[in-house]
Amino acid sequence: MIVQLSKKPKNPIIIEGFPGFGLVGNISTEFLIDHLHAEQIGSIKMEESSPMIAIHDGKVIHPIGIFYDKASNIVIVHVIANAQGIEWKMAEVIAKLATDLQAKEVICLEGVVGAEDDFVRSFYFTNQKNSEKKFESIKIDKLREGIIVGVTGALLLEKDLPVSSIFVETHSAMPDSKAAAKIIEVLDKYLGLDVDYKPLLKQAEEFERRLKSLIAQKNAVADEQEKKRLSYIS
Amino acid sequence: MIVQLSKKPKNPIIIEGFPGFGLVGNISTEFLIDHLHAEQIGSIKMEESSPMIAIHDGKVIHPIGIFYDKASNIVIVHVIANAQGIEWKMAEVIAKLATDLQAKEVICLEGVVGAEDDFVRSFYFTNQKNSEKKFESIKIDKLREGIIVGVTGALLLEKDLPVSSIFVETHSAMPDSKAAAKIIEVLDKYLGLDVDYKPLLKQAEEFERRLKSLIAQKNAVADEQEKKRLSYIS
Amino acid sequence: MIVQLSKKPKNPIIIEGFPGFGLVGNISTEFLIDHLHAEQIGSIKMEESSPMIAIHDGKVIHPIGIFYDKASNIVIVHVIANAQGIEWKMAEVIAKLATDLQAKEVICLEGVVGAEDDFVRSFYFTNQKNSEKKFESIKIDKLREGIIVGVTGALLLEKDLPVSSIFVETHSAMPDSKAAAKIIEVLDKYLGLDVDYKPLLKQAEEFERRLKSLIAQKNAVADEQEKKRLSYIS
Amino acid sequence: MIVQLSKKPKNPIIIEGFPGFGLVGNISTEFLIDHLHAEQIGSIKMEESSPMIAIHDGKVIHPIGIFYDKASNIVIVHVIANAQGIEWKMAEVIAKLATDLQAKEVICLEGVVGAEDDFVRSFYFTNQKNSEKKFESIKIDKLREGIIVGVTGALLLEKDLPVSSIFVETHSAMPDSKAAAKIIEVLDKYLGLDVDYKPLLKQAEEFERRLKSLIAQKNAVADEQEKKRLSYIS
Amino acid sequence: MIVQLSKKPKNPIIIEGFPGFGLVGNISTEFLIDHLHAEQIGSIKMEESSPMIAIHDGKVIHPIGIFYDKASNIVIVHVIANAQGIEWKMAEVIAKLATDLQAKEVICLEGVVGAEDDFVRSFYFTNQKNSEKKFESIKIDKLREGIIVGVTGALLLEKDLPVSSIFVETHSAMPDSKAAAKIIEVLDKYLGLDVDYKPLLKQAEEFERRLKSLIAQKNAVADEQEKKRLSYIS
Repeated sequence: MIVQLSKKPKNPIIIEGFPGFGLVGNISTEFLIDHLHAEQIGSIKMEESSPMIAIHDGKVIHPIGIFYDKASNIVIVHVIANAQGIEWKMAEVIAKLATDLQAKEVICLEGVVGAEDDFVRSFYFTNQKNSEKKFESIKIDKLREGIIVGVTGALLLEKDLPVSSIFVETHSAMPDSKAAAKIIEVLDKYLGLDVDYKPLLKQAEEFERRLKSLIAQKNAVADEQEKKRLSYIS
Repeated sequence: MIVQLSKKPKNPIIIEGFPGFGLVGNISTEFLIDHLHAEQIGSIKMEESSPMIAIHDGKVIHPIGIFYDKASNIVIVHVIANAQGIEWKMAEVIAKLATDLQAKEVICLEGVVGAEDDFVRSFYFTNQKNSEKKFESIKIDKLREGIIVGVTGALLLEKDLPVSSIFVETHSAMPDSKAAAKIIEVLDKYLGLDVDYKPLLKQAEEFERRLKSLIAQKNAVADEQEKKRLSYIS
Repeated sequence: MIVQLSKKPKNPIIIEGFPGFGLVGNISTEFLIDHLHAEQIGSIKMEESSPMIAIHDGKVIHPIGIFYDKASNIVIVHVIANAQGIEWKMAEVIAKLATDLQAKEVICLEGVVGAEDDFVRSFYFTNQKNSEKKFESIKIDKLREGIIVGVTGALLLEKDLPVSSIFVETHSAMPDSKAAAKIIEVLDKYLGLDVDYKPLLKQAEEFERRLKSLIAQKNAVADEQEKKRLSYIS
Repeated sequence: MIVQLSKKPKNPIIIEGFPGFGLVGNISTEFLIDHLHAEQIGSIKMEESSPMIAIHDGKVIHPIGIFYDKASNIVIVHVIANAQGIEWKMAEVIAKLATDLQAKEVICLEGVVGAEDDFVRSFYFTNQKNSEKKFESIKIDKLREGIIVGVTGALLLEKDLPVSSIFVETHSAMPDSKAAAKIIEVLDKYLGLDVDYKPLLKQAEEFERRLKSLIAQKNAVADEQEKKRLSYIS
Repeated sequence: MIVQLSKKPKNPIIIEGFPGFGLVGNISTEFLIDHLHAEQIGSIKMEESSPMIAIHDGKVIHPIGIFYDKASNIVIVHVIANAQGIEWKMAEVIAKLATDLQAKEVICLEGVVGAEDDFVRSFYFTNQKNSEKKFESIKIDKLREGIIVGVTGALLLEKDLPVSSIFVETHSAMPDSKAAAKIIEVLDKYLGLDVDYKPLLKQAEEFERRLKSLIAQKNAVADEQEKKRLSYIS
């Protein structure tokens, strides 16, 4: 795994969104990048999963892109690659990035399996007293019982790393723009970003729609690859 | 595998409880930690299995946590991670821990498959003459014929390590608080811990209930991951 | 992976065609080699996939052959081997080849899953402003939304490598000479090769027919191997 | 793989019994150890297969134990571990043991698939002229056509190692005490051990019974492990 | 992979017969060894596939044996082991053997999938002009279109190695003595060995019969191993 960075912001907040339930991590970090007009300052090359890039609006979307918004001093790690099987390594890389940039905090955005009703609940978990106070003051519930897997789980075990995570309930593995909108709402309050809420849900729906189409395309590709493997070259 | 320790107690008894039948190891070590108000003094990082932490009462439960009760000089190794495939390594790490701390004894708590009736039978096995006498004096039966697998099996092959194991019959892979209560009873007699028995079964039931809910949550997560893998990114 | 080259052309255009949907990459690079009377100047030995050679017209076709046409200064990488699982390495090898030869551009020929109608659509994607202009001038559409996997996906992430890709829609994993003919048409316009179109489709059909027979033979071999494994030696 | 030896007998005969058809190797080496009152002088630690010990008569049975009978100068390698996938290594270890102890001969005890009738046939194979004469003199048939797999097969390829193997027909994978008794009979004649035959079959039946119960227990463990894996921790 | 040789013939012709369709390679090299009374001068130890030896006529048949006939200066590589997955390595080993012995030519004997009729067709392929002429003079057809996999495929890619292959059509994975007889006929003409044809087919049938019995035995072993694995030790 190789991290390439053209800029090295100092003391930023790092926000990471790995693909997860409802692809909440993808949609919300993508929204943030768009909303903040963040510029790409780097990428992480991860040869452990097979190469896949997305083309969006005629531009290459890296498997793992690193973006930066100077005004808010926020670094966003946007991930479309699959981290399954290399979560420990991935967490190490992000922890190292945080140390190198002397990041104030790493914030993980995560969808979790929730009850299937209309109300979207959200929780936080943090290893920082300060952050705990801030979350309480904006009236977010703390996660008191549960299981956390993947990169976020591994990051929360990093002893000297200030890590907070925002969880939002979602109901399936398909892209869920409503849950992503909710996570942005919590993040906005927590960081005081002053996001204009009106376009948010609409834009998130737009991402959802596009992701679904990509998924369909990806599945078609996978199906064909499977067939091809069967029919041509072993 | 990395062992992190903030304290190094001298000549303790080490009690380990790996997940096993009836999750007896988990429930009983968790009960002990609670009952003795043991403090966490370390953890074992094991990158061989994928990251998973539990949140309990708003606190992080490490995949493998090391706890200490000064009054009784007991070190407890509490495990929620999966050791399958790395049992030899795990046994080595625990043997090294025992050597480093000059532990008096390592006690393994294990559920075994038993006949399905109401009476919960328990057995011991030990490679120490002294321990054998103690077990006999409290009228526990020795395991005379059987097969022992996993970390406990590997520990019993460590030539110079004083190892005892307490086995208790259980009937399924689901959390079994009754079997865990039984193992605590035997351990209490063996170590003279003076555990108040009244709350024990109730508390164990509480753990059982919580574990079952975690399991349900974990399974939901696994199901969704499976689906996600099928539907999005290979 | 070992690259063997008997000649080192300077500043060529490199065209690569990995097996993909409709085997478009194979058919079109094979057509080009024939049409340009390109000579084989090397091969890439790739021990990661099991050995397979084709015999065509009594001559050995290498798993990955490197051909050269001096007149047009074009290097063609012709691939019948399976690159699945080693796409990153393969991309690195091609990128290194491009650097060593100071190639002007790498052009990837790719089939993509398309709607099933009679009209064969084609797209381009490039990381070069110049190439973008050229493609626009010959009225090829840019790929604006999509997912690109495999060696081509990996090549487009190579920072300092000028890469263009021509995509053509195809409908199945079976050899599709019509799609291959379309890609040659686009490539011809893009590079000004002055290909005589009349024999093209016919010749491509010839390749398609032969490939289909090879596939049938390969499948028979695979079936028999499977049976043999079951019946003789494990 | 680590060999631990507390004694180093000189010029012994080494007898090995790996688990095989009818578990003939296990039962017969176990009988020999009992009959000769052989003492354990070592063990082989083999971390390639997952840890499993047996408890027999309140004592630990090592995955691979090395026993010694001084009177007859016989070393017995008793194996309950699974050598599948590491047969070459295992054969190397035994060959090295033989070289270190300057063993006169290695004798392998093996069950082979036989016709299902009441008569139990036995065969020998050897790479030593002397041994061949001895086997012929006690009227055992030489194996003339057949396939030998596993550790015994690998040992017979060791160029400078005197190896003999006694094969006995058995009909299933379940423990077969009758076949084991037959192999002991042949071994007794071959080595002139003067085994009292009366208790042999009875004792072998005893081993068979116990092994079957262990197998049942082992399967129960395996089933539960499978379930547990499905229901708790991945 | 280790090559052991007790003699180093100079400038021999090397004939290799890997197991393949109809086990043509096995049967024909075995026939040749018998017919020429070739002596075993070495073997290749290949720990990548699990140990298996055959006993034939009371003698050990190595997984890969190297035989030599001085009169005709022919080295025969006789293979009963499975080379699947290590074809590249195997080809390298044979190429090195050829270089070490300064072999005049390597001749591969291969069964290929053929149409199911009574006539047995044969083909050749070679990378040597001289050999091509010889094959044409004895009126064997050149393979003009096809796919060659496995060790033979890999050998034909060895740049500086004179390699010829004789292919004969066969219809299944079961031993096919008729196809083997055909390949010997071609080889005899090509090398001028003056083989007496009368006993050939009969002897080949004998080999076929014996191989079929070995296969049945091998399958029985495999079945039992499978069962054993399920029922005893994991």
